[in-house]
Amino acid sequence: MNLEQLAQELKYDARGLVPAVVQHASTGQVLMVGYMNSMAFLHTIRSGKATFWSRSRNALWVKGETSGNYLTVREVRVDCDRDCVLVVAEPAGEVCHEGYPTCFFRRVTDDGTLAIVEERSRLPEEIYGRQS
Amino acid sequence: MNLEQLAQELKYDARGLVPAVVQHASTGQVLMVGYMNSMAFLHTIRSGKATFWSRSRNALWVKGETSGNYLTVREVRVDCDRDCVLVVAEPAGEVCHEGYPTCFFRRVTDDGTLAIVEERSRLPEEIYGRQS
Repeated sequence: MNLEQLAQELKYDARGLVPAVVQHASTGQVLMVGYMNSMAFLHTIRSGKATFWSRSRNALWVKGETSGNYLTVREVRVDCDRDCVLVVAEPAGEVCHEGYPTCFFRRVTDDGTLAIVEERSRLPEEIYGRQS
Repeated sequence: MNLEQLAQELKYDARGLVPAVVQHASTGQVLMVGYMNSMAFLHTIRSGKATFWSRSRNALWVKGETSGNYLTVREVRVDCDRDCVLVVAEPAGEVCHEGYPTCFFRRVTDDGTLAIVEERSRLPEEIYGRQS
């Protein structure tokens, strides 16, 4: 099997996407979940930079192309059903656009409030510049 | 905010689902990805057992109800966009129905083959009994 064949044989949903979990290669922290179509999957493996399909922009999205915070791929895994991808990667900086190291920076408490349990390293405007 | 409100305010897809990543509380290994509707999300938090919506059976699915391999919840997180959930849990046994500790037991190699990189602890028929 070659890489194109594998990319064809993932079980995409009706939108042609599979979820892709990104895990920190050194700490094991779960950093984000994005979505990949076959193009994003192939680009991730060939470029070594985690690449997703942006559902809002309808375009290929190399994570870090705006912020510089690329995710350098160490390993890609697929699950038993081939409908989900795990990307083990080394992040160049904070992963979340909100300035946290992980997008999962809030914990659900018993009363349904969300508690911030990660340290914010930068403000969004420091990452992306101020919006005019 | 109470728990019902939070469950309502997650950003579900057109099917009413969000992906839920399960991570091993002790080892940090990513174990599986399932899908939750608001009912599964509430059941997960209230029962302390990771609970999903089975897309194939169209029913609430308490992971482990057949195999006994429950996922005891230690922490639930939501991501920045509220469209994904992270469940940190202690598994009672192998998580994958194929008998591996994680559903992500295959690594993508450069030539597109899938290499098994986890140890199989049991065969599926030992977990679920032989199909007649």
